[in-house]
Amino acid sequence: MTVAHIGHVELSVTDLEASAGFFEEIVGLTVSRREADRAFLRAWQDWDHHTLVLTRSDRSAVEHVGWRVERPEDLPHFQRRLDELAIEHRWMRAGGEPGQGDGLRFRTPAGLPLELYWEVQPYAAPAAAASRLPSHPQRTPRTGIAPRRFDHVNFLVEQVEPEQRWLSEELGIHHRYYVESADGGRLGSWLSRTNVSHEIALMRRRDGVGSGLHHLAYYVDSTDQLVRAATLLADHGTTIEWGPGMHGTSGAVFLYFFEPSGHRVELWTGGMLIFAPDWRPLRWDADSAPLGFELWDSRAPDTYFSRSSPVLGEAAAPSRTP
Amino acid sequence: MTVAHIGHVELSVTDLEASAGFFEEIVGLTVSRREADRAFLRAWQDWDHHTLVLTRSDRSAVEHVGWRVERPEDLPHFQRRLDELAIEHRWMRAGGEPGQGDGLRFRTPAGLPLELYWEVQPYAAPAAAASRLPSHPQRTPRTGIAPRRFDHVNFLVEQVEPEQRWLSEELGIHHRYYVESADGGRLGSWLSRTNVSHEIALMRRRDGVGSGLHHLAYYVDSTDQLVRAATLLADHGTTIEWGPGMHGTSGAVFLYFFEPSGHRVELWTGGMLIFAPDWRPLRWDADSAPLGFELWDSRAPDTYFSRSSPVLGEAAAPSRTP
Amino acid sequence: MTVAHIGHVELSVTDLEASAGFFEEIVGLTVSRREADRAFLRAWQDWDHHTLVLTRSDRSAVEHVGWRVERPEDLPHFQRRLDELAIEHRWMRAGGEPGQGDGLRFRTPAGLPLELYWEVQPYAAPAAAASRLPSHPQRTPRTGIAPRRFDHVNFLVEQVEPEQRWLSEELGIHHRYYVESADGGRLGSWLSRTNVSHEIALMRRRDGVGSGLHHLAYYVDSTDQLVRAATLLADHGTTIEWGPGMHGTSGAVFLYFFEPSGHRVELWTGGMLIFAPDWRPLRWDADSAPLGFELWDSRAPDTYFSRSSPVLGEAAAPSRTP
Amino acid sequence: MTVAHIGHVELSVTDLEASAGFFEEIVGLTVSRREADRAFLRAWQDWDHHTLVLTRSDRSAVEHVGWRVERPEDLPHFQRRLDELAIEHRWMRAGGEPGQGDGLRFRTPAGLPLELYWEVQPYAAPAAAASRLPSHPQRTPRTGIAPRRFDHVNFLVEQVEPEQRWLSEELGIHHRYYVESADGGRLGSWLSRTNVSHEIALMRRRDGVGSGLHHLAYYVDSTDQLVRAATLLADHGTTIEWGPGMHGTSGAVFLYFFEPSGHRVELWTGGMLIFAPDWRPLRWDADSAPLGFELWDSRAPDTYFSRSSPVLGEAAAPSRTP
Repeated sequence: MTVAHIGHVELSVTDLEASAGFFEEIVGLTVSRREADRAFLRAWQDWDHHTLVLTRSDRSAVEHVGWRVERPEDLPHFQRRLDELAIEHRWMRAGGEPGQGDGLRFRTPAGLPLELYWEVQPYAAPAAAASRLPSHPQRTPRTGIAPRRFDHVNFLVEQVEPEQRWLSEELGIHHRYYVESADGGRLGSWLSRTNVSHEIALMRRRDGVGSGLHHLAYYVDSTDQLVRAATLLADHGTTIEWGPGMHGTSGAVFLYFFEPSGHRVELWTGGMLIFAPDWRPLRWDADSAPLGFELWDSRAPDTYFSRSSPVLGEAAAPSRTP
Repeated sequence: MTVAHIGHVELSVTDLEASAGFFEEIVGLTVSRREADRAFLRAWQDWDHHTLVLTRSDRSAVEHVGWRVERPEDLPHFQRRLDELAIEHRWMRAGGEPGQGDGLRFRTPAGLPLELYWEVQPYAAPAAAASRLPSHPQRTPRTGIAPRRFDHVNFLVEQVEPEQRWLSEELGIHHRYYVESADGGRLGSWLSRTNVSHEIALMRRRDGVGSGLHHLAYYVDSTDQLVRAATLLADHGTTIEWGPGMHGTSGAVFLYFFEPSGHRVELWTGGMLIFAPDWRPLRWDADSAPLGFELWDSRAPDTYFSRSSPVLGEAAAPSRTP
Repeated sequence: MTVAHIGHVELSVTDLEASAGFFEEIVGLTVSRREADRAFLRAWQDWDHHTLVLTRSDRSAVEHVGWRVERPEDLPHFQRRLDELAIEHRWMRAGGEPGQGDGLRFRTPAGLPLELYWEVQPYAAPAAAASRLPSHPQRTPRTGIAPRRFDHVNFLVEQVEPEQRWLSEELGIHHRYYVESADGGRLGSWLSRTNVSHEIALMRRRDGVGSGLHHLAYYVDSTDQLVRAATLLADHGTTIEWGPGMHGTSGAVFLYFFEPSGHRVELWTGGMLIFAPDWRPLRWDADSAPLGFELWDSRAPDTYFSRSSPVLGEAAAPSRTP
Repeated sequence: MTVAHIGHVELSVTDLEASAGFFEEIVGLTVSRREADRAFLRAWQDWDHHTLVLTRSDRSAVEHVGWRVERPEDLPHFQRRLDELAIEHRWMRAGGEPGQGDGLRFRTPAGLPLELYWEVQPYAAPAAAASRLPSHPQRTPRTGIAPRRFDHVNFLVEQVEPEQRWLSEELGIHHRYYVESADGGRLGSWLSRTNVSHEIALMRRRDGVGSGLHHLAYYVDSTDQLVRAATLLADHGTTIEWGPGMHGTSGAVFLYFFEPSGHRVELWTGGMLIFAPDWRPLRWDADSAPLGFELWDSRAPDTYFSRSSPVLGEAAAPSRTP
């Protein structure tokens, strides 16, 4: 009994209009549903109803990260397991989150707000946006950066290793690669259930307390699309935090920036897939770690290891950097 | 006394709304001026007021191709030379073509409708589209294919060699490379005044009579942009005539398709620049010519050497292919 | 009990020196072992000892296609299942194929020569080629096209549908998308166990009899790498059969050519991954199929649906095309 | 009377074997001639005998930068003009620099070591490297980064503006864009005679004295080629100083690193061409300059405005950075 794959993220945002406009017009996601206080979005080849929910709030935070399970009967099994583990949980009944069936919500030991669900409504493009290609759930967008699909999330946590073990043991998310400090401390771990290099990452926060969403990532088709993205962002007034650069760990090319309500977004492309059923996590030590974070000798900005979005309902993580 | 560089094309179109919409929304050009019966467009880094004029008509044809001269005093010199050559010509007075000063219009020996001009108005972006970057005459567009700049034109003619000589001798447009048939006949010639591989090409028509515009070309930044363009076109219902392929002659990657009023458009990228002041035209013979037309072993479709846009006011070139 | 992922292909080749040289110097694979009559090769990020074996022979054919299973104990279970199905099989004992443990070899109902195995030796780069990056089993090659990894195989068969069902039901390889003719006949099916769009494809042969290997495919990182590949091939005398083009089915960009002993090779890049645990195969009908095969309106050459490499030990498939 | 275009650079190097090996095997240039103490190299589509000369020395320095003139008769005219200006000069007689005719060598007011020449020998590929394509002076290389062509040079100087004026007025090299500090001081100027955005740049040094070669640049075909270059360099032990990034000024994507004898090399791609005969230099002021240097919000490393290669025969420029 494992999760099947990561499915979506819900973010609370202080400026819903600005954030929804940014994701639609600049990032080039498609709005699949708009309510007064929520916007549901997806990339053009995301097959499901949504991969991002933006919810109006007086605070920007991460509300939950949804994972699809492998079979409908896994949901009650997971519920029993949470009971065994004495982990508080609650059901989000079908329809509470439009486009989705029942969702089982809980927090991991490090406080990551997860949801497990089985049923999901496929995205149905309105006639004007429908493609004649069965492989295109909608026509390829003419506007914005237009990534292909939702890819992964990354959280800052205080203790990486126990949280990685919990995700691997309880949810079946394979450990793919990790970074150790000179004294053997775990600085980061990257995990995936599928063949992508990671669907969720954990990095040790440099300052502040608690867990927070470091970023969510959408996949673009090529480095050139990333370059186009960077130039569009620069020419439309969005500051780029870091990139384009290449994560030596995954081999993917990345770009980080902040959306209007303050959440960090990554666009990335390329890199490796992992197929071996007996994959042993790759170890990056103090010598190789700098190239693991960035292969081309650029260094992460100060904000990179400290700034994150708090988990909804948690106190903000005090941090020396903004 | 030579031309300085190619500047713009005026096309008459049978469906102005469809053509202007296509160039704006799909190709991603910017409309710099719209009149009831004319649309003026340019690519995002075209510095001048326009590089394409679409004029409503009951027939799709090429109206004129404009070339900028090197100095204001060249215009009267060219006029005298046309008089010497007994070539009919007429002045388009400043303002007749908005954004431009006086234009001297005439037809070459093969009937190509050219215009020479000096004065041109720079494009001034409206505030909402202005970029904070001095190198960007407008912000990089969020919509459509969005090529960087206008690049070149290509004409089908009955006799390539005399027309090439005329363009080289009278206008100073350098001969860059050519294709010969097995019997030494000239099948095509490519010419430029600037360092790009060609600003104007001449190809021998396979059937039909007279001269016609084969295509006009805009430059995109990368093969990946061309791939994005091809997919956007395919998913929005435009048939691609040929490409992506690579012209072995220039090394540029190409894509050909027809806009709604029937003119062939090329997007292209990459390839060589030519710097030598004593450049000797490269000769492609019957053996190498197929790779010259397409390096990766695809072959031009039947339409490629026969279909073209007639010159305004000329009888349509009868042709066995549509 | 299913396979885990496709692992490697063994081809018999009539000119081992030419084929091994081509795959090493032009394609840019790395030779991990060379014997008098065999060469073992892999792409730079293939983690296993080899993904391609070339074996000297008086006939170019496909010898076997290896699939890794999920657990060591799956091998005897598969053997029992083959017994139940009365499918002849034999063991290739550990070391018979260097770098690999026991292999269970058999033919599918359509005659595809498969092998199942668990144990595999990781590639160990010689010191001179070792990378300081844990994510690089060797340094990124300076020479040749240098794809990232082995990707998939494609077979021509007489009857697609029953073979697809057998692969799905007996080996657990998911059906991802298929093409139907106007009369409902199955023209092709694409299947994968992993999240890539397909690891094995079946296409109905247009003429000839029996099954044959249509191509094996390696993955390159970008369309630009594919363009570089096409130009390297063209400039080093290899004819390109088809491409670059985009398979509308997968969204991947492709290039096909023949190696010196006559096997078709594909390089491809991009396209979609499939994550849904309840994925329903996409159906391409007679209307959409042309765009499914090639999205940008090029058409497959005549050779594409008839030429293939025979299965070792089978009579050559007579075919009207070379 | 103007120069025609930049042609080549001669560098003295402390480790000829290491530098020549690096440029051949990693950068992927072709050696057109090798002497005991000199190596002559060029990119694959450089038409001339060489674009880079490496000369063994006990000091790494820039020996000269060669510019081709427009006509043979320009050389004596330039000599007379140097006499008028009382600028010392000397003739390098034909053959002194293999592959080239007479060269007129002198130093500009800021001490830049230039050479003017007319005659140049085209590169003649040995049979094994010859291409069947008339547009390819040699086959596209299978090895290394393999840029397409030599592009430009950049010098650190103490006073930008007077040197820019001298180059424009005496050599006819157009001023394309410049950067000013808040107090109106000139921080950099970029100039070209051809349509590329610049063939020579001048930047004000932050510390140290005198002029020095900041870098020489080769052009690659795409951002993806640059990414491949960066990864090859990283995986073969070369530290990247800065990039990939985009110069907002030109729109080109760049990568900087140092070759084994310590000269800075740039690979770059894309960006704008300039066609207007009445181009007015673009002004980047203190507000826009950071984006002019790097559009995606990365900042130049400390070494960038101080480290340079001394001019041969000049005292090294003392500088606080290595």
